[in-house]
Amino acid sequence: MNEVQEALDAVKGDMGALWITIAAVLVFFMQAGFTLVEVGFTRSKNSGNIIMKNIMDLCIGSIMFWALGYGIMYGSDTVLGGFFRTSPSDQGYFFFSADDWYNLFFQTVFCATAATIVSGAVAGRTKFSTYLIFSAIITTIIYPISGSWYWPFDDNAWLNVAGFVDFAGSSVVHAVGGGAALVAAKMVGPRIGKYGPDGKVNVIPGHNMTFGALGVLILWLGWFGFNGGSQLAWGGDDTIAAGRVIINTNLAAAIGAIAALFLTWIKYGKADISMTLNGALAGLVGITAGCGAVDAFGALAIGLICGIAVVLSIELIDQKIKIDDPVGAISVHGTCGFLGTVLVGLFATDGGLFHGGGAGLLWVQFYGSLSYVLWAMVTTFVLLFILKATIGLRVSEKEEIEGLDIHEHGMDAYPEHISNERE
Amino acid sequence: MNEVQEALDAVKGDMGALWITIAAVLVFFMQAGFTLVEVGFTRSKNSGNIIMKNIMDLCIGSIMFWALGYGIMYGSDTVLGGFFRTSPSDQGYFFFSADDWYNLFFQTVFCATAATIVSGAVAGRTKFSTYLIFSAIITTIIYPISGSWYWPFDDNAWLNVAGFVDFAGSSVVHAVGGGAALVAAKMVGPRIGKYGPDGKVNVIPGHNMTFGALGVLILWLGWFGFNGGSQLAWGGDDTIAAGRVIINTNLAAAIGAIAALFLTWIKYGKADISMTLNGALAGLVGITAGCGAVDAFGALAIGLICGIAVVLSIELIDQKIKIDDPVGAISVHGTCGFLGTVLVGLFATDGGLFHGGGAGLLWVQFYGSLSYVLWAMVTTFVLLFILKATIGLRVSEKEEIEGLDIHEHGMDAYPEHISNERE
Amino acid sequence: MNEVQEALDAVKGDMGALWITIAAVLVFFMQAGFTLVEVGFTRSKNSGNIIMKNIMDLCIGSIMFWALGYGIMYGSDTVLGGFFRTSPSDQGYFFFSADDWYNLFFQTVFCATAATIVSGAVAGRTKFSTYLIFSAIITTIIYPISGSWYWPFDDNAWLNVAGFVDFAGSSVVHAVGGGAALVAAKMVGPRIGKYGPDGKVNVIPGHNMTFGALGVLILWLGWFGFNGGSQLAWGGDDTIAAGRVIINTNLAAAIGAIAALFLTWIKYGKADISMTLNGALAGLVGITAGCGAVDAFGALAIGLICGIAVVLSIELIDQKIKIDDPVGAISVHGTCGFLGTVLVGLFATDGGLFHGGGAGLLWVQFYGSLSYVLWAMVTTFVLLFILKATIGLRVSEKEEIEGLDIHEHGMDAYPEHISNERE
Repeated sequence: MNEVQEALDAVKGDMGALWITIAAVLVFFMQAGFTLVEVGFTRSKNSGNIIMKNIMDLCIGSIMFWALGYGIMYGSDTVLGGFFRTSPSDQGYFFFSADDWYNLFFQTVFCATAATIVSGAVAGRTKFSTYLIFSAIITTIIYPISGSWYWPFDDNAWLNVAGFVDFAGSSVVHAVGGGAALVAAKMVGPRIGKYGPDGKVNVIPGHNMTFGALGVLILWLGWFGFNGGSQLAWGGDDTIAAGRVIINTNLAAAIGAIAALFLTWIKYGKADISMTLNGALAGLVGITAGCGAVDAFGALAIGLICGIAVVLSIELIDQKIKIDDPVGAISVHGTCGFLGTVLVGLFATDGGLFHGGGAGLLWVQFYGSLSYVLWAMVTTFVLLFILKATIGLRVSEKEEIEGLDIHEHGMDAYPEHISNERE
Repeated sequence: MNEVQEALDAVKGDMGALWITIAAVLVFFMQAGFTLVEVGFTRSKNSGNIIMKNIMDLCIGSIMFWALGYGIMYGSDTVLGGFFRTSPSDQGYFFFSADDWYNLFFQTVFCATAATIVSGAVAGRTKFSTYLIFSAIITTIIYPISGSWYWPFDDNAWLNVAGFVDFAGSSVVHAVGGGAALVAAKMVGPRIGKYGPDGKVNVIPGHNMTFGALGVLILWLGWFGFNGGSQLAWGGDDTIAAGRVIINTNLAAAIGAIAALFLTWIKYGKADISMTLNGALAGLVGITAGCGAVDAFGALAIGLICGIAVVLSIELIDQKIKIDDPVGAISVHGTCGFLGTVLVGLFATDGGLFHGGGAGLLWVQFYGSLSYVLWAMVTTFVLLFILKATIGLRVSEKEEIEGLDIHEHGMDAYPEHISNERE
Repeated sequence: MNEVQEALDAVKGDMGALWITIAAVLVFFMQAGFTLVEVGFTRSKNSGNIIMKNIMDLCIGSIMFWALGYGIMYGSDTVLGGFFRTSPSDQGYFFFSADDWYNLFFQTVFCATAATIVSGAVAGRTKFSTYLIFSAIITTIIYPISGSWYWPFDDNAWLNVAGFVDFAGSSVVHAVGGGAALVAAKMVGPRIGKYGPDGKVNVIPGHNMTFGALGVLILWLGWFGFNGGSQLAWGGDDTIAAGRVIINTNLAAAIGAIAALFLTWIKYGKADISMTLNGALAGLVGITAGCGAVDAFGALAIGLICGIAVVLSIELIDQKIKIDDPVGAISVHGTCGFLGTVLVGLFATDGGLFHGGGAGLLWVQFYGSLSYVLWAMVTTFVLLFILKATIGLRVSEKEEIEGLDIHEHGMDAYPEHISNERE
């Protein structure tokens, strides 16, 4: 039976590789989802620029993570007491050449996701060249370093040792992206006309809700790969676990959208479209940490809380703190990424406060997630500080008003002037 | 060999679960397809409302089917002589907590599909709040009850006992959705301006054929999961069977589109775009019942008949019966769902009339499908009768003319006025 | 162990069939990608016509390849000394009825791809009826015949015997499509207004870059199935090989886009959107031949070269040779398909010139790819020559100026006049 068992184990490994590969394809598709959400929720005069930023996140991230990021994140040797990692050359992790290509593929599309989150928050006024450098640094250094603190799931990963739970990256991916987005949106400053001299907050509506909705549905679809694939295996108990992850993910998204719908209906008297769509994303981001650790009731609770939180957070950031985040990326990914991670400490069936586990897990979740947010904020600040002092962060006033598409890319995204702006 | 055989059987089960999971992801994507078809084929002033209805079908359906629907449909115990089902709590079917999560996932996305079919038929004049209640009832009660008559494939399912054949739901999903759509569109009444006082039938064109076409291609894609996944297994003979199902599905869609193209070309002198797209959907709906029971020639015959029938049915309903169905949902899902189910009685290689099987199967297919259509029509009538008498079905005339987006949701889906309606 | 080994081999076969089926679904989705790229990159007045052509490529191709194409391409018996193939009826390859339906599915969607490539190059002036005949011939005869020269991978396939390497069809699919596109675009002639009487080259911009970008991302996604699925197996070494193919594919696309971006930025002073998108496609087409034969560095080199070549080729064809190819299909699929095939002779780790393999492989790659291009050009010429002499190739001047949608299909794709052309 030994030889047979080995063969059966190999089959299980191959099924796992197949599932991870397909999951990676779904996560890849999220790039299209992000692009459509950002394009749809912003002005048409910047659509081409948003497209280019998202495509370049993917292109730069794919190459940099293959060359350097994977080794920094998953290498067997630690540097500076576990601050980041390196990898002996025979491991094949730098300029990746090991056998588990499906793993590189899955991790690469995660890395590209982290970068893309920032794109929406700085839409409509950021220099394209500056953005490209930022994208390269986040995919090569910022994301891989903090990723190494947890996801290799080994004894060198301090948050793994501490018992931190972030199944698919509410913190590792989304709060990092959201924290970077917060600092970047603040440092780049608001779009012209967003905040009046009298303190008036103007709404700058997007141009195409259909693109936005299609984007959200594609993101939701991709999240089945994002979370389900993070089981990193298939067969036997892994089949059951991955299936439960997928249902938890779907339930959280569903109730997140419903929560945002009714909250806005009550608050504004209208069932708000973009808030409802963001509510679904909030549920998805929120459940990403705990989808493997909570039951369906916990998933519904987390989704509900995040669906409400995203509405309040968007209002707070837009109207009180006055940071201009055209698509709500800071709230969706930052607020709900942090919140979803912490809520695992309440709802985890094994160790959560509401399941008799005490406050230990809650505390780990809190400081673990905070570490990710602060890491992203500090590194983004340093990076953009340097970029601001050198090549600059913003396009000129004229370029911003006339649209980045014409000035940065020499064309209108809708050359027949499908979009006749009224102003 | 016994122990090994058990292990191999487990592997086959895991491969099946993987296939069903991926198929469910494809069916999930159909929600985006439905949304795009409905948005593209209707006026831009209601796009946001259509998006919200489709998203809510998915959200409400996901939660209600997890909580109640699955147990009502698949529970081991029957109620009222098999009218519907219930489930002992240790089965974990209500507020689902059993191990086969992939099954819940697959059935959930089917349930959401049934609800979404109605959305298009009542587009442009239905109250959003009324629609949400309707969506909750169809996903919690109407669909699960009639689904229980057949799909558990056991001795308690009277249509299964009768020998009814509906592989992936031409009747169970589509004719139910289409029957509900017929009654709903009739009871809500036509859009203002659709039928002139002089009996004149006005065309109210959609606003974006590209969205419509993308939607149809996404639906076609999703149907490979819808039908192929309904094999509910993978490996050995199941691999062959699922593959044949996929090819039958593809052939029926292809010839359905071709049939509608040439029929309209001959009838109108123009190769009609929306009819051709609906022809593909007609072929897909039609082959859904028989894709596992007919050969490729049978699939082509069914697709051809449905591609022709959908054009004639749309004309009949629009111009003679004068029920306003903006996207043709009644014809695509109702007419072709019924027709496709019945045609299995002619073309099934095992038991079909044209393969020497006599009229027995044909008769079962007829009364089985009719049962589904009538069930959907009666329950929808009762439900909407109550809703009409209480909260009402329609928006005000002013709201309808100015668009549901502004009045129900407080915004335009294309805020830069991409769409300059001429009237 | 013998019996067990057999069972394990069957499992491996089933996993392979699952992977190929999923890969085929991804390749199917490329039809939506092509449609969106072609629609987005051309005028709105022809969008419906482009949609219809792409849908019909799929419909006609699905039926013809099932009926005749598969047998001509994969049959066991050769005709005319291996010029094409035929198949004894018990093989079930004509009017396909063999057991490996997943294989038919995978090959069918490849066939539809080859046809669709031509669609973009002749957009905006070609008669719809003429196009349908062309589509039928390419899917029934042109593609299957030349496909039979290599892809059955047996002793009857002369290019296989010669040692030709074209893993997933840089030549077999793309250069064939590109060669046909070149001849077709030349014979149909340029759109009115493209080339002024004074030799002036006018730019006719597309109407929706968002559709174009979404299309490119969908194509990129589909390519993971196109190339990864061409491993035609899963499990053990095949898992490793397919994974490497996917990473090579992704790296080539990424650097292709980056190369086109910087080249246009330097040349034009603007980071060109449509060229960058075409750069990604160029990398994808280029790596398709060698994705299984080169390492990651080779993939990057091929992607880089193709990303540069596509820009130069589009300029050359548009401005010097003056063939009007609205979407750049000739350059993307023809130039980069040929180039990518030839470059395998340099970069293949086994037999490539730069890996010490001499010029032998390079020579085979050159004449093999040239055979495909010439075959496509000659057959397209003959076919269009006959069609020109009989039913004609072009619509009337009036039809072209007012748009093919109104005249061929009786409607506008954007009936609310979303698109307000300025001219």
